[in-house]
Amino acid sequence: MPGILGGGAGFTCGRSAGRARRRAGVRGVCRLPGRSRVAAQGNGLAVRGPSGILGGVLIRETEPADWAAIWPFFRTIVRAGETYTYPRDVGEEQGRELWMVPPPGRTVVAEDSEGVVIGSAKMHANHMGGGSHVATASFMVAPEGSGRGVGRALGEHVLAWARGAGYRAMQFNAVVESNTRAVALWKSLGFEIMATLPEAFHHPELGYTGLHVMYQKF
Amino acid sequence: MPGILGGGAGFTCGRSAGRARRRAGVRGVCRLPGRSRVAAQGNGLAVRGPSGILGGVLIRETEPADWAAIWPFFRTIVRAGETYTYPRDVGEEQGRELWMVPPPGRTVVAEDSEGVVIGSAKMHANHMGGGSHVATASFMVAPEGSGRGVGRALGEHVLAWARGAGYRAMQFNAVVESNTRAVALWKSLGFEIMATLPEAFHHPELGYTGLHVMYQKF
Repeated sequence: MPGILGGGAGFTCGRSAGRARRRAGVRGVCRLPGRSRVAAQGNGLAVRGPSGILGGVLIRETEPADWAAIWPFFRTIVRAGETYTYPRDVGEEQGRELWMVPPPGRTVVAEDSEGVVIGSAKMHANHMGGGSHVATASFMVAPEGSGRGVGRALGEHVLAWARGAGYRAMQFNAVVESNTRAVALWKSLGFEIMATLPEAFHHPELGYTGLHVMYQKF
Repeated sequence: MPGILGGGAGFTCGRSAGRARRRAGVRGVCRLPGRSRVAAQGNGLAVRGPSGILGGVLIRETEPADWAAIWPFFRTIVRAGETYTYPRDVGEEQGRELWMVPPPGRTVVAEDSEGVVIGSAKMHANHMGGGSHVATASFMVAPEGSGRGVGRALGEHVLAWARGAGYRAMQFNAVVESNTRAVALWKSLGFEIMATLPEAFHHPELGYTGLHVMYQKF
């Protein structure tokens, strides 16, 4: 039942970028743009219909063929084991099942101006039945997308989708505490840390660390 | 992907019992025995191997044929919509998939002294990968099992299983705030409310209410 374990809003910009920064002695998992840069590029949520351009990044619905472009950075990020509660030895088919969610959920990709897929997000209800009015989402940014506002653009897109689809809140179930840039990004987008579950995540370098539950009512 | 949405440790003793009590003007979802009664019956956790007798209730592994005995109260509880984030119109096959979890997860039943199945619990890892050392579980007690210590016996069994299996903590993702007797039971078994997600559950009578995230480190 891999499905149980999805959701969560991990966010990462890939291990290779992180390694390069660690070699350079730079702290932090990855560089994200400040709010100002996105604002300067036209902050209004330019999502129209199923796709839109946000902060210079095109976000569009996936087609099945997009998995081929997602899988390389999905694999890199999951194998790093620093931000996602997926098996580090994930196979391609398992990855596809985890990430390419069927309707009414959605998986989108972020493309740069040359049509290169540099990120992806999936979104769906967090629970069924009496909990189905709360959405959740997860995010990945390719190493080559780092520092280009892709995470923020995807986050804004997902929030606009959830509001538009009639959800009343969004919940991230498992944001790794040490992923401080992601936590800061989600806070800047209106999320609050509701709880930090102590030692609920085993980080390959840091050992046991917390998982944040983050939440935003609309 | 119904699997995404499982887990959570709803706990209920069936709607018919609740209705009868509401007609009688009695508050509370269902009657649970106090700690003292269980203690009087031999508090020590008498789980040996895959099954055990706890508080006068036999808890044993399920076989596929047990679903026939679980389904009637599973359906009653889910259709009431007061304690579980499952679709209220759940079908029998969907119910079986939600409840009868494959190894390494487990589903157990509670039997009374006459061999009647009066409750059930399922248990498994709450996340994969770096989160797979935290267990979760869900519980149901049949109306005819109400007030007989079944919920407590199942809870103690599940905690013993999780410790024995090497998990380092247990998390309940979605305990309905209005299910106060369940919340009190989990607290008495060592769980703490880590967060209450506001309006994250829609109760058919009470409207929007909170979902507790409950957690216990071992």
